[in-house]
Amino acid sequence: MKVIADICIIPIGTSVSLSPYVAACERILEDAGLKTALHANGTNVEGEWETVFAALKKCHETVHAMGAPRISTVMHLGTRTDRPQTMEDKIASVRNKMG
Amino acid sequence: MKVIADICIIPIGTSVSLSPYVAACERILEDAGLKTALHANGTNVEGEWETVFAALKKCHETVHAMGAPRISTVMHLGTRTDRPQTMEDKIASVRNKMG
Amino acid sequence: MKVIADICIIPIGTSVSLSPYVAACERILEDAGLKTALHANGTNVEGEWETVFAALKKCHETVHAMGAPRISTVMHLGTRTDRPQTMEDKIASVRNKMG
Amino acid sequence: MKVIADICIIPIGTSVSLSPYVAACERILEDAGLKTALHANGTNVEGEWETVFAALKKCHETVHAMGAPRISTVMHLGTRTDRPQTMEDKIASVRNKMG
Repeated sequence: MKVIADICIIPIGTSVSLSPYVAACERILEDAGLKTALHANGTNVEGEWETVFAALKKCHETVHAMGAPRISTVMHLGTRTDRPQTMEDKIASVRNKMG
Repeated sequence: MKVIADICIIPIGTSVSLSPYVAACERILEDAGLKTALHANGTNVEGEWETVFAALKKCHETVHAMGAPRISTVMHLGTRTDRPQTMEDKIASVRNKMG
Repeated sequence: MKVIADICIIPIGTSVSLSPYVAACERILEDAGLKTALHANGTNVEGEWETVFAALKKCHETVHAMGAPRISTVMHLGTRTDRPQTMEDKIASVRNKMG
Repeated sequence: MKVIADICIIPIGTSVSLSPYVAACERILEDAGLKTALHANGTNVEGEWETVFAALKKCHETVHAMGAPRISTVMHLGTRTDRPQTMEDKIASVRNKMG
């Protein structure tokens, strides 16, 4: 089952700067072979269900190992069975309607 | 790794009533042995990482099989390494502070 | 326009214990006259659009004033025009389908 | 108070194609004078608190007027008081850490 997801990992109980943690997760998601797109409030990923969630688990393990005692992750997760769709398709579909 | 999560599964391209889908997912989460707490905007679950995500996958497969061509799930996901914590602990901790 | 929302306010750059901040927000939401239901991953609220968002703004202002330099809030927000619905209706509707 | 937010508006009880609704909301957010960035799972916006939430309300009103009986919106919402920050700053900060 293919997944398009938006992942936002928030370490809690650390300093106000979260970018070292986010950068580490970016690398994990890329190294997992997922298609990724960093944006201002998270990272979009596209790939197989198992790959996405194995990478997410590695992100949690790594952020804890980097010193965060607590993590709150927010995730949007889309699956569809009617037709294949990529992240680019989703964006193009909206842009087309904007004319 | 233990997880406390909030899962909200939204079928897309179906009728306006989502409760049959949500009820099916509730049963899946309970049958997986997770501690669950249904609320007005989703379901809180507590359990081991693998159990939570295996059940979530089964929810997506089931909701698609029930006829939803597309699913959008929103998930909060908390892990912590400093100390054990249950869903009840989280609620009690806030209530205590409210005096 | 009536809203049923789930609000989860996460202070960033503070200590690992978030309950004092969550408790302060709970009081703000209640004092605003909103119907509230605290759960393990946030607070459900029911009320008029303007009331909900005025209270949410007061939550952000208060949590910053309590010392959090940064806040990340996650919110689900439901509106419907086909029929009135309360938070209790939503839960009952799922429970009925579970038989 | 300045806000960086991620908005994902999901019409319920409509057809499987959501892009006409998302496109209408994109135009509303842009016309409100907000800085916007469409991505595969939502739209990032940057602007003043009041502007963001007035535009969000107009999105809900418009999507209902387009025929959606029910809407579920997911929103991340970030505010900070320690220093000014733009959406571009957030992305650059992560990229810098990735080296």
